[in-house]
Amino acid sequence: MLALRKYIERYTKLPEEDWQIISKAFERKVIDKNQTFVEKGKVCRYFYFLEEGLVRFYTLIDGNDITKMFTIAPGCFTSKSSLRKQKPAQESIETLENSVIWQVKFNNLGHLSQVDSWNEFIRKFIYEVDEFAEELLMQVKTETAEERYLKLTQKYPTIIQKIPLMHLSSFLGIAPQSLSRIRKKLHENRKS
Amino acid sequence: MLALRKYIERYTKLPEEDWQIISKAFERKVIDKNQTFVEKGKVCRYFYFLEEGLVRFYTLIDGNDITKMFTIAPGCFTSKSSLRKQKPAQESIETLENSVIWQVKFNNLGHLSQVDSWNEFIRKFIYEVDEFAEELLMQVKTETAEERYLKLTQKYPTIIQKIPLMHLSSFLGIAPQSLSRIRKKLHENRKS
Repeated sequence: MLALRKYIERYTKLPEEDWQIISKAFERKVIDKNQTFVEKGKVCRYFYFLEEGLVRFYTLIDGNDITKMFTIAPGCFTSKSSLRKQKPAQESIETLENSVIWQVKFNNLGHLSQVDSWNEFIRKFIYEVDEFAEELLMQVKTETAEERYLKLTQKYPTIIQKIPLMHLSSFLGIAPQSLSRIRKKLHENRKS
Repeated sequence: MLALRKYIERYTKLPEEDWQIISKAFERKVIDKNQTFVEKGKVCRYFYFLEEGLVRFYTLIDGNDITKMFTIAPGCFTSKSSLRKQKPAQESIETLENSVIWQVKFNNLGHLSQVDSWNEFIRKFIYEVDEFAEELLMQVKTETAEERYLKLTQKYPTIIQKIPLMHLSSFLGIAPQSLSRIRKKLHENRKS
């Protein structure tokens, strides 16, 4: 649970008494690899912190499995719109690795909103997520899939290896065959 | 200024005493067409409400003018990250039409954060902006430029006509020639 504390402290000062309240609101869950624990069409009832592991946000569109996003540990995530409005989720979330997750129930989030440091954390976290989505959008508009893939491999060299090719390609918005070609090309360039 | 009041009331109940404080914090500005009033590299010092007109967020990348986003009246906008952190903006904002804009200074935003209804408005507004960015990202990944263009023309039939082709094409992430072809094709389909 120390990981969660450290994570929140990236965003805000966290007085001991606040941490006592926050830590009591979370419960620990271990989820095996390849389990969908937030389902599209059902209401998401938790805000999550990923202590260890890797999760993937995805949705089926015309029968195609499209990867929206990944969350890498340590990191917070949830199906935002579903949790906030308590409406059916537009996406599913699954583990890609065995994962250690801390979760806080929607009902308890109201309780936490009495805690100043928690509010500051959430506010800054939402800003960060929004900026991240905007940045991805600009990248998609202005960079080729190859450039975006290269950036990912440079930023997350170990994690990229753990993501199945089909999920990485749908995240990049290209066919798996195209990603295979890009990988092969980059590999050959490295050798030469 | 009634437009701003109505706009905030879409998000939250607005007691008269809150509105008195909020309305005093804003000042009115008329900006002619094609004026850049937030400049990339300079700190953005205002949060804006667009009462009338049309604005465009853009950035130059390798000499190319890329449209990030538009704000259509009535709507709030700012260079979020720049305003929040008071750091140089990563984007410029210009008017595409003669516009009536209400602005509130960064220093006064701290003052407004004492007002509950304002805070609720801002919180919900940020969520909405974030969801919008995520939705655009999914569209870019899963839909062709033609499908996205068609959606835009259906949702904003009048406004689309006011946006120069080059800005609309860079927003869609395609060459102006490609958008011309799409337009021609759709026009011919409509006739047949």
